[in-house]
Amino acid sequence: MAAERWDGLLTGARLATLDAATDDGGSAAAPSDDRDGASRYGLIEAGALGWRDGRIVFAGRMDALPAAPADLAAAVIDAGGDLVTPGLVDCHTHLVFAGDRASEFEQRLTGASYEDIARAGGGIVSTVRATRAASEDELLAQSLPRARALVADGVTTLEVKSGYGLDFANERKMLRVARALGDALGVPVRTTFLGAHALPPEFAGDADGYIDAVCDWLPRLHAEGLVDAVDAFCERIGFTGTQTRRVFEAARALGLPVKLHADQLSDGDGAALVAEFGGLSADHVEHTSAAGVRAMAAAGTVAVLLPGAFHVLRETTLPPIDAFREAGVAMAVATDCNPGTSPLMSLRQGMQLACTHFRLTPAEALRGATVHGARALGLGDRGVLRTGLRADFVRWRVREPAALCYWLGGDLVASVHCGGRRVV
Amino acid sequence: MAAERWDGLLTGARLATLDAATDDGGSAAAPSDDRDGASRYGLIEAGALGWRDGRIVFAGRMDALPAAPADLAAAVIDAGGDLVTPGLVDCHTHLVFAGDRASEFEQRLTGASYEDIARAGGGIVSTVRATRAASEDELLAQSLPRARALVADGVTTLEVKSGYGLDFANERKMLRVARALGDALGVPVRTTFLGAHALPPEFAGDADGYIDAVCDWLPRLHAEGLVDAVDAFCERIGFTGTQTRRVFEAARALGLPVKLHADQLSDGDGAALVAEFGGLSADHVEHTSAAGVRAMAAAGTVAVLLPGAFHVLRETTLPPIDAFREAGVAMAVATDCNPGTSPLMSLRQGMQLACTHFRLTPAEALRGATVHGARALGLGDRGVLRTGLRADFVRWRVREPAALCYWLGGDLVASVHCGGRRVV
Ligand SMILES: [Zn+2]
Ligand SMILES: [Zn+2]
Repeated sequence: MAAERWDGLLTGARLATLDAATDDGGSAAAPSDDRDGASRYGLIEAGALGWRDGRIVFAGRMDALPAAPADLAAAVIDAGGDLVTPGLVDCHTHLVFAGDRASEFEQRLTGASYEDIARAGGGIVSTVRATRAASEDELLAQSLPRARALVADGVTTLEVKSGYGLDFANERKMLRVARALGDALGVPVRTTFLGAHALPPEFAGDADGYIDAVCDWLPRLHAEGLVDAVDAFCERIGFTGTQTRRVFEAARALGLPVKLHADQLSDGDGAALVAEFGGLSADHVEHTSAAGVRAMAAAGTVAVLLPGAFHVLRETTLPPIDAFREAGVAMAVATDCNPGTSPLMSLRQGMQLACTHFRLTPAEALRGATVHGARALGLGDRGVLRTGLRADFVRWRVREPAALCYWLGGDLVASVHCGGRRVV
Repeated sequence: MAAERWDGLLTGARLATLDAATDDGGSAAAPSDDRDGASRYGLIEAGALGWRDGRIVFAGRMDALPAAPADLAAAVIDAGGDLVTPGLVDCHTHLVFAGDRASEFEQRLTGASYEDIARAGGGIVSTVRATRAASEDELLAQSLPRARALVADGVTTLEVKSGYGLDFANERKMLRVARALGDALGVPVRTTFLGAHALPPEFAGDADGYIDAVCDWLPRLHAEGLVDAVDAFCERIGFTGTQTRRVFEAARALGLPVKLHADQLSDGDGAALVAEFGGLSADHVEHTSAAGVRAMAAAGTVAVLLPGAFHVLRETTLPPIDAFREAGVAMAVATDCNPGTSPLMSLRQGMQLACTHFRLTPAEALRGATVHGARALGLGDRGVLRTGLRADFVRWRVREPAALCYWLGGDLVASVHCGGRRVV
């Protein structure tokens, strides 16, 4: 009997399962349909959540529990009516970097142009320089507080991209640090190789030659178990569609999924390109065309919205939100945490910005930061509170899911559980 | 000897004194000139800060300390190069309230108009109803996490307004709770009587009669020591200039300073009106005219900028920042923390929004959240790190002051000290 008891059971919770089938307190058996359920939280009042061996074994109404709580689980926690949601999934970050670029923010506000800053050695080049100069331990020490801040505000799975090393040894170092972050914090970290992020100085004028190098590094990094997905920056100031295609073909040869920084500053047909490769996600997508939206819908490619950069850069062109809604393209929300354009260390604050700037509903923002974020990482085992999925969940000091998207600042987290284990 | 030792000494700090005279590491003797110093942090590298009996006794370079640290102070803390700033001063909040209005945020994002929400019993009326229904203890319990969140992110003095009670007993209850917050958290709370916030249902159609009542309550509340200043909401949808003037005259009869919610939605000559009364501040001021700016400059009235409401309401008319700069009007930044329009529980995040939306420089935002915030409360003894002033300061886990205005989310606070006592 004792061996079959659950590891833990949360009672008296207001569960936002995000499982459309559970709305109105129904059973959690059927899979959710994201299109029909986009405006719904799958709310269960007076709910209970049980877990064993890191998986959810019960997510439903307390009065549907098969026995008395104390008989079911080794540890029973009374949530006191608090809201419980799936753990947040931050599917797009650049949080492994060294150095600091707050001074550039200041320079811009005191009148310097991006060109002025670049001429003075600022911009991404300064982050590449500092990241290359840092030892692996230093890079881990500098990156850990950022990852910890995300987890402290409810993140239980996060993605980290390389792309500030831009040579084999330093891209490898970044990816190793990303893995080490997961070990240090007890949360899964998904790594993305973004060698094609920017052209390093040693390849100035030879972008094709640099793409050759990137395609050479990829299988070696993959062989070390450092690459979960492959990304590129396809933009007039980044890499061309042809160059991006070569990186994607190298990924396909290894069976690795792809994603793309697409159509952020201009429509470069990036969304259609990544959809053509059956990509997990097209990210930014402020300038994606109607054809790009159709291609994403057909391929099941997720639109990853990044409101932090939109906010700080004071962009005015919104992503085609209505077109995504109509076409049934799932929208994820992520921090894009990076030192240059998106200084976001909280996915909850990203949800606030997504509602404020992009007019997402709070339900869309919460799904974007959970189940759709997981889908953008190719992870079908999390982002919803449902029997059989990972026991990744957050207990919040609020009752209304909309409150998560409303408040800026404050500490709304009561506890964060990852694979059943409390990490905050 | 022991009796004369300092209570504490912070060494190895990067001091942003905000004292113009100390910039470049000079002595802290001369008073700062806010106009000349507006772009400066008064930075001292390798600085030290000593305090005794709640006051600063030394703020300068470590090598100018009069003796060895251990001989000077009972407790010596090595700041390890961390940035140390004056404690933040949040000079405009409505954080004492009961209930929750996140659902209205959701309703607006799913298509409801303000009128729809008001017809359904939402808006300020719902906060008044909930605040009246709450006992004093309940109101304190609901308000405490918000005040605690402000302090946790660096606030050492905060203002709290009444204005959701709208009758004598409930305005009194709010002000008593505001005082109790200060006792609970160990930080000074300044109370502002804002009876003229909205017209309560029992005075519908009789705004003049309500102002009679407000002017009757004020001396009674003041006699209980509950009122530090008097405020009103002067707006087409609030009270007229004539009604506001009557409230201000009642304040003047008691020797109480005034401030005003002025020109937020339209130019109602509110800034000129509060300046005429020598008011501490005109708050919001998005639509203040050139004449209003001149009147504020002549009276020394501070412009309190409230970027949280601007952000959430997606306003587009900026306050006349350049005119304030040219006229030498000090600009404060505050959270306006309230359930309906400014869900900000961090003044640091308010600084971020002020830089992003209003294009304040980080130095202006930091002065706005410290020395100018203090001035907006009539407090000349804080907001700058200078010998003789209150030992209110924050040690941050960053080196660059601009970083405080850059990051959204994250926990940048290492410790918060109020009157020399560590409160976080
Ligand atoms: Zn990115
Ligand atoms: Zn206000």
